[in-house]
Amino acid sequence: MISTNKIKQIKLLHQKKYRQQNKQFVVEGYKIVSDVVNSEYNIDEIYVTSAFKETIDFDTILISAKEMQRISGLKTPNNILAVVNIPEPKQKFDSSNKLILCLDSIQDPGNFGTIIRTANWFGINTIVCSPDTVELYNQKVLQSTMGAFVETQIFYTNLEEFLSNYKGNIYGTFLEGENIYKQNLRQEACIIMGNEGKGINEKISKYVTHKLYIPSAGKVKAESLNVSTATAVILSEFRR
Amino acid sequence: MISTNKIKQIKLLHQKKYRQQNKQFVVEGYKIVSDVVNSEYNIDEIYVTSAFKETIDFDTILISAKEMQRISGLKTPNNILAVVNIPEPKQKFDSSNKLILCLDSIQDPGNFGTIIRTANWFGINTIVCSPDTVELYNQKVLQSTMGAFVETQIFYTNLEEFLSNYKGNIYGTFLEGENIYKQNLRQEACIIMGNEGKGINEKISKYVTHKLYIPSAGKVKAESLNVSTATAVILSEFRR
Repeated sequence: MISTNKIKQIKLLHQKKYRQQNKQFVVEGYKIVSDVVNSEYNIDEIYVTSAFKETIDFDTILISAKEMQRISGLKTPNNILAVVNIPEPKQKFDSSNKLILCLDSIQDPGNFGTIIRTANWFGINTIVCSPDTVELYNQKVLQSTMGAFVETQIFYTNLEEFLSNYKGNIYGTFLEGENIYKQNLRQEACIIMGNEGKGINEKISKYVTHKLYIPSAGKVKAESLNVSTATAVILSEFRR
Repeated sequence: MISTNKIKQIKLLHQKKYRQQNKQFVVEGYKIVSDVVNSEYNIDEIYVTSAFKETIDFDTILISAKEMQRISGLKTPNNILAVVNIPEPKQKFDSSNKLILCLDSIQDPGNFGTIIRTANWFGINTIVCSPDTVELYNQKVLQSTMGAFVETQIFYTNLEEFLSNYKGNIYGTFLEGENIYKQNLRQEACIIMGNEGKGINEKISKYVTHKLYIPSAGKVKAESLNVSTATAVILSEFRR
């Protein structure tokens, strides 16, 4: 059972404004909900329908499929949905002695989520984002991570300030960069990925110490790679 | 000027059924429309609004921004839209002496489009798809290719039949595969990428001669890579 008022409240969490106001977000589906249950995130409530047959280590509230449809943010609703509390953003983070990723104004939720998933796959657990990068708690971002966001420290901060204090190598991809396949890539470094349309902002690019390029097969119609695709190629190259 | 009837016809092209019935599809935006103009595709009509300032080598029809809004399939309409004729599917294709990609039941239009874009970047111009792979002329697929589809031969065919006649190495990724970074990868080969949720179908996997694996950083929450991301890592590894 779920009250009409509660349904209304949860539906509002599909809008950024209300997520920020109520400090809560929504995730749906067994895999991602159980990843959140087994993480440091603090869960408010978990709703399930009678179709939910798995077990989960949290008290669940049984609702009808019709009610699930109303509170779900997905086209095809799942049989489990969690309302999770947004933690206080951490003020400090340690970026030394490891490979980290910096995102400059990534706008597409699917790209951002896929980048978090890919970074997690390659063992990167710190991502520093410009303040205008898409919001982490956007449901499309979270679902695209396939649960990887619970293992990733994601910070929003002024990148210029962060980079000006950063001590290691700073990598970025540019058309005039060096062939990535021929570089000796350092494992204690920061890799910057730029906006989908505009690439890395000029103010940010001046901090790049090593310009890289993923060679294409020549003059091809695709003038660039998608940013999440390029991130995958670069991280694979660093980790191989 | 555009008639109400024409508006209705173009709007219907945003549905697969009518694309197949009328043998036409729609692309929007200067880059992709000009890629199509400069390709072998046969264009029916190109509509522009007064905001269109570039030049294009085709007679255009001027319409109002409001009319563009009505015929556009995009949330934020562009100032140029082309209606293009679907060519007759080619019956024969040459898959020898090169690297080709096989897609087994890719369902997400964004993934398919991104794979075409990435393949084009790495110089692959032949993609063989199972009949249940998402339709090429879906607008989201085409837009995600960033124009690369005009340089790519894309075939839909029975993969079992195709693979049983294929002579070269056949690669696919599997959890039990060999570390891709340690393989001597052949450039005359076929790489199979599987469905987003289920991976490579059992009936197809028996044709794989070389099972590959992209190593993760250990036991991570992301249990796999997104299929377009994995394709990028694999193609980069073949081409580096």
